[in-house]
Amino acid sequence: MVKHDWQQDLADRRDALQQELIELLAMPSVSTDPERRDVTRQTAEWVANRMRQAGVPEVKIVETPGHPAVLGRWHVADDQPTVLIYGHYDVQPAEPLDLWDTPPFEPTVRDGKLYARGSADMKGNLLTSIHGVEALDRANGQLPINVSFIYEGEEEIGSPNLQQLVEAEREFLAADAVLSADGGQHGPDQPSLSVGLKGLGGCQINLTTANSDLHSGMYGATVPNAVQAMVQLAATFHDVDGRVQVEGFYDKVHDLTNTERAEIADVPFDEVTFTSDLGLDALWGEAGWTPVERQWARPTLDMNGIWGGFQGDGTKTVTPRKSHLKVTCRLVPDQMPVEIVNLIEMHVQKHCPPGAKVEVQRIPGSARPFVLDRDNDVHRAAGEVLEELFGRAPYIVRSGGTIPATGIFQEVLGADSVMFGWSMPGSGAHAPNEWYRLEDYERGRIAYATLLDRLKR
Amino acid sequence: MVKHDWQQDLADRRDALQQELIELLAMPSVSTDPERRDVTRQTAEWVANRMRQAGVPEVKIVETPGHPAVLGRWHVADDQPTVLIYGHYDVQPAEPLDLWDTPPFEPTVRDGKLYARGSADMKGNLLTSIHGVEALDRANGQLPINVSFIYEGEEEIGSPNLQQLVEAEREFLAADAVLSADGGQHGPDQPSLSVGLKGLGGCQINLTTANSDLHSGMYGATVPNAVQAMVQLAATFHDVDGRVQVEGFYDKVHDLTNTERAEIADVPFDEVTFTSDLGLDALWGEAGWTPVERQWARPTLDMNGIWGGFQGDGTKTVTPRKSHLKVTCRLVPDQMPVEIVNLIEMHVQKHCPPGAKVEVQRIPGSARPFVLDRDNDVHRAAGEVLEELFGRAPYIVRSGGTIPATGIFQEVLGADSVMFGWSMPGSGAHAPNEWYRLEDYERGRIAYATLLDRLKR
Repeated sequence: MVKHDWQQDLADRRDALQQELIELLAMPSVSTDPERRDVTRQTAEWVANRMRQAGVPEVKIVETPGHPAVLGRWHVADDQPTVLIYGHYDVQPAEPLDLWDTPPFEPTVRDGKLYARGSADMKGNLLTSIHGVEALDRANGQLPINVSFIYEGEEEIGSPNLQQLVEAEREFLAADAVLSADGGQHGPDQPSLSVGLKGLGGCQINLTTANSDLHSGMYGATVPNAVQAMVQLAATFHDVDGRVQVEGFYDKVHDLTNTERAEIADVPFDEVTFTSDLGLDALWGEAGWTPVERQWARPTLDMNGIWGGFQGDGTKTVTPRKSHLKVTCRLVPDQMPVEIVNLIEMHVQKHCPPGAKVEVQRIPGSARPFVLDRDNDVHRAAGEVLEELFGRAPYIVRSGGTIPATGIFQEVLGADSVMFGWSMPGSGAHAPNEWYRLEDYERGRIAYATLLDRLKR
Repeated sequence: MVKHDWQQDLADRRDALQQELIELLAMPSVSTDPERRDVTRQTAEWVANRMRQAGVPEVKIVETPGHPAVLGRWHVADDQPTVLIYGHYDVQPAEPLDLWDTPPFEPTVRDGKLYARGSADMKGNLLTSIHGVEALDRANGQLPINVSFIYEGEEEIGSPNLQQLVEAEREFLAADAVLSADGGQHGPDQPSLSVGLKGLGGCQINLTTANSDLHSGMYGATVPNAVQAMVQLAATFHDVDGRVQVEGFYDKVHDLTNTERAEIADVPFDEVTFTSDLGLDALWGEAGWTPVERQWARPTLDMNGIWGGFQGDGTKTVTPRKSHLKVTCRLVPDQMPVEIVNLIEMHVQKHCPPGAKVEVQRIPGSARPFVLDRDNDVHRAAGEVLEELFGRAPYIVRSGGTIPATGIFQEVLGADSVMFGWSMPGSGAHAPNEWYRLEDYERGRIAYATLLDRLKR
């Protein structure tokens, strides 16, 4: 009956809780943008205040060399398990702005969806975890189990300071398992539980030729062109079958077992719809693997940006002296980020065209790949709760995405992470017109309260 | 003795004439920049006023769909020859601004050189042609021969409206030969006469993959990446020997004769100094030809700019949906610009990677290649004048640069062009820290007056 009480209470406060999310999304906490530093800190303070309001007795803002993290702890009984709830309050940049139908930081409701930068990734999910905790407190005056919290502000730039912070706060954050709110569901009515995340390592490649931009008529026929040299160099990264050509790139990759391939094949994937929804007539990727296998379990080398020479309107007949390429790799066990960037550096030095010089600039933020040990109480309980709420057993999935926190919690706290979040495929995380379903926002907080209750011994 | 008079007069007005150039260079007449439209027109008016001040009786500003041209005519006698003096008052963009030691539109004198955008290309030369005319007028009250003038405002964007303008003003501009001030000398004390110019044709290639930028973790392994697709496509333009791989590109190119190769080899070229002055350890270009042959007489496909995806600080793990490449070709007889861009369009459609779509956007402004018929009175007289003033016979050279006007005058007026200008190699035309020697500015106006005098029958 207690359960019923808090569900009614949440339903009564539905509009206020929706208004809260709109307020949080209006704060442009873009962690990669130095000009958004102040508002990013204000967002951390907003989250800390919201946790205090939810009843969390110990809340603190912990400084880092970058953006602060918000930590919390609610210890109720030594004989109860402890879960650490993880999330992040920072968001991706919103550019290109002209592709948004409504401004990214003016949250707008259309057809049951809230459109804003950070709605799906992951301010909506973040609030569901706080609301779930608050619901139990309002019903019972305390929590059924011990809960700690960490909401960081640097996930979208690769969590460069998280490892050090978790090590320093090892005792405060100690937990049997982690519940990561930075996850998604498979479809509108189909839950999923993720057992794998890719790692991340990246760099910026800076290429230089002559000591000055030059007139293409006077020099173009004899002087190396930095755009052309970069194009030649970058074209060596993949073969025509989409396989990465960096020497040693696949050396530590485990091939999928037949069991794993079968498990992945069990999750429905409609390639025709997927392709046409993206406006494409063909997919791309490493030959020999299905699209889902590639996405979940094969490493990639992704070109995120390129630039050099004249980009304005009209003509400039210049032979450019500089060009740049941003590359990130999505990694699978047991590829280590530093080793992979070392291999890329050797590759570009080896393939740099004559007359050009190349420098590899490491991008802060990297993550080790993660695969969950499935013999895990929280994983099992989460599966039961999702099945009750959705009326269907969750698919067992992986993600091509990266959450550096997961590897850090495993290494420093000895705690595995269970993904417990509600973002939808195609919701535009990292892209224009990002959205989050209000229905998922409501079910998500019920799921958090139910799971915390279920974990009581 | 007349000659002496005007030389003394020019010497007496040295400082005032230098100040004039500083004033002209301070006007940022960047023809490719829509925001500089007004100041570009003001520059045309400045030039027209200066011509009137020099005594030219008929001066008019002629409108075009783009920037206006300044035309002038001074008819003295039916039995004298008519030369048309050509130049342009527009300049290249100054970007990247951070590479300039002093601001591009604040002309600064250092070590006998005037530093400013447009100093070498070609506001200095433009004024030498007006000053030469003025000197003869001040000495004699009129000119020895008939002179017409055309200073256009769209040379740096490829003279898109010049053909139509010259056709409309065919009678006003009628001439036996053209003296183009848009040229250079070989070295500080070594004159040159150019007998060839390359043509120009170009386009912007726009490549699209999915209908949205995407999260590289969720999509990167299966969805075509617009930056990677562009890199693959652009890498097909050249083989490893620097030869253009566009089918049919060389079909109409005439191989150099042994005589022409010998003539080119006669012009001294120090490859070691050239290479090290540019900060390079190797040159680049089509195998089988010397650097000077490539520069003067072999066609090229030049990449002037590339962009796509994320270019900011930090990381954005995006799979980009759009990328762009700017390409121009320098052409030699008998390559026609439209035909070459057609071949490029066929090439990119054929080599566009699966899952990507590509569109070729033609860049306004193209030029036919030009080679001078050497049996030309003005060419001969110009050689004599240069030998007298420099104390050395001019080298017979070509240029890798492009002046669309040359082909247009040949076609519409039946008049060949003789290049008569003073820009120096390495003076940074189209690059930061462009400069022009004051010594050349002074000798240039004497050369103009002397040559016009010499052409009198």
